[in-house]
Amino acid sequence: MNNTILLNNRPEGKPEESDFKFAEQEPGSPEEGEILVELEYVSVDPYLRGRMSDAKSYIPPFELNKPIVSGCVAKVVESKNEKFNIGDHVSGLMKWQLKQVHSGKGLQKVDPDQAPLSAYLGILGLTGLTAYTGLMEIGKPESGETMVVSGAAGAVGSVVGQIGKILGLRVIGIAGTDEKIDILKDKFAFDEGINYKTTGNMKKAIAEACPDGVDIYFDNVGGEISDAILFSINKFARIIVCGAISVYNETSLPKGLSVQPFLVRNSALMQGFIVSNYEDKFPVAIQQLASWLQEGKLTYEETIVEGFENIPQAFLDLFEGKNKGKMVVKI
Amino acid sequence: MNNTILLNNRPEGKPEESDFKFAEQEPGSPEEGEILVELEYVSVDPYLRGRMSDAKSYIPPFELNKPIVSGCVAKVVESKNEKFNIGDHVSGLMKWQLKQVHSGKGLQKVDPDQAPLSAYLGILGLTGLTAYTGLMEIGKPESGETMVVSGAAGAVGSVVGQIGKILGLRVIGIAGTDEKIDILKDKFAFDEGINYKTTGNMKKAIAEACPDGVDIYFDNVGGEISDAILFSINKFARIIVCGAISVYNETSLPKGLSVQPFLVRNSALMQGFIVSNYEDKFPVAIQQLASWLQEGKLTYEETIVEGFENIPQAFLDLFEGKNKGKMVVKI
Repeated sequence: MNNTILLNNRPEGKPEESDFKFAEQEPGSPEEGEILVELEYVSVDPYLRGRMSDAKSYIPPFELNKPIVSGCVAKVVESKNEKFNIGDHVSGLMKWQLKQVHSGKGLQKVDPDQAPLSAYLGILGLTGLTAYTGLMEIGKPESGETMVVSGAAGAVGSVVGQIGKILGLRVIGIAGTDEKIDILKDKFAFDEGINYKTTGNMKKAIAEACPDGVDIYFDNVGGEISDAILFSINKFARIIVCGAISVYNETSLPKGLSVQPFLVRNSALMQGFIVSNYEDKFPVAIQQLASWLQEGKLTYEETIVEGFENIPQAFLDLFEGKNKGKMVVKI
Repeated sequence: MNNTILLNNRPEGKPEESDFKFAEQEPGSPEEGEILVELEYVSVDPYLRGRMSDAKSYIPPFELNKPIVSGCVAKVVESKNEKFNIGDHVSGLMKWQLKQVHSGKGLQKVDPDQAPLSAYLGILGLTGLTAYTGLMEIGKPESGETMVVSGAAGAVGSVVGQIGKILGLRVIGIAGTDEKIDILKDKFAFDEGINYKTTGNMKKAIAEACPDGVDIYFDNVGGEISDAILFSINKFARIIVCGAISVYNETSLPKGLSVQPFLVRNSALMQGFIVSNYEDKFPVAIQQLASWLQEGKLTYEETIVEGFENIPQAFLDLFEGKNKGKMVVKI
């Protein structure tokens, strides 16, 4: 039985189903200090595209013919580690393998009574932490400021926008379908939404939606959308560069407007980050996110696909914008 | 007699002599609180190009048929302001007018015995302050790190490189003639110099000159040189965007590599600035620069052009790279 998903090829451009390979691999038995876990939920994320290439990056690339690894929630089914009991639910980085031996390092116990297990891959997991730490540490938001979020209906974007509203910002979201724009405004309380696929002149649309200019831009997409926003940034604007999904699959180096003249004219900042830069902020961040969630100030959208065999397709669908909010596979 | 230089046209692309107009304007007489000054040295700077356009920027554009304004040193020839005496030398923003009435606001008295008067437009003026505050406040240099400086033989670049060496950095300078490269290494003690005009593959040249990668990039030029450096930046790199002279004269919006993927992969920062953002740091900075200058740790290069009538040409020559160090016109 095919219980494991391996990296079959390093994709050129857009990844394809054939870049993955199903295989049968023995899970093995836990030794002293180890546990055996059974996958329950698997997170698929745009950043995994980067690990499929062998370009220099913040995390090492996946190896060919080795299992893909991503954030997962699993149940402990055997334990030789005193920190974990059989029946515990744990979250952390795991292989795409139905049952697997794990050292327990980096795993957190999660409570299914506090929130649905899938939430620990989303709003209470790296997604929520990415939104919170990026916005707070780089964006340094102040009440009354204007923030634009691209990829706003995505997992991170929808959380960023809601935190912005909680903190008193005017929030404008950019997404690619009218349905997503409706969700932004109705479910997540964004002030405005712009459908970039039906808007002819993005530069003008942004200027109109942001009469006081843009103080913070939380960038999940890069490319032409991000270029258009440069024309509206205010003095001392902060551009949080969280991702660039629009250009991840390009085979030649993507080009765009030179940002330097805009940064100089506006004394503006652009900063890239990865959530692990801010590990020391995680405890405070999770507490804050959980408390907003319980108070009903924060909500989330997730797209749950069922079945281990559908993990590759769920990942590929991210690049078609088929997800609303966090994309998760239920095993 | 033509004693004043006005803005005649807003340049399209590269500025031309005809964008300036010489005229005779009465200097007038100082009223209570005012002084009459006589220009001694005039600073010409790339940033003035920005003020000749009417694009949104950090400082308002010059007005057509009004005098150009830049940093100048002048002698007080009449005073109705108790802070200034006849014979004092003062520096600050003044009109390109041989004699002029000035409110005295923003003017600093300068001492010709401490340093040559032209130095107050350069290393002890906004040039030195730009280098110092940009490097310290955004670059946050740490001994042992590697810094690349573009426009390295220019007024700001040569000071940045020297401060880098004082602070224990490995410093690589990029400039456009072999003579400038020699000056960088021999006079300013840069570790390496790269002549971008004779180097075929800048990406490779930078990688070779920076075996430990680039921690700080002090960017005076923008364009293709800055693109090439992105391939060598380290995790947590800081890119100080001081200027973009290579693209100031382009009539269409300049394009280049999308920086977002590089910033994300390396958790890197890019920040634009203008020296006045750091006014509160000026006293400490000037003290530090003056003390390094007196200790002989800091030196400077200047290109002095003579004659009021040659101010426009001196300004135009900046864009041809004809200056070594600070370009100043002696009246």
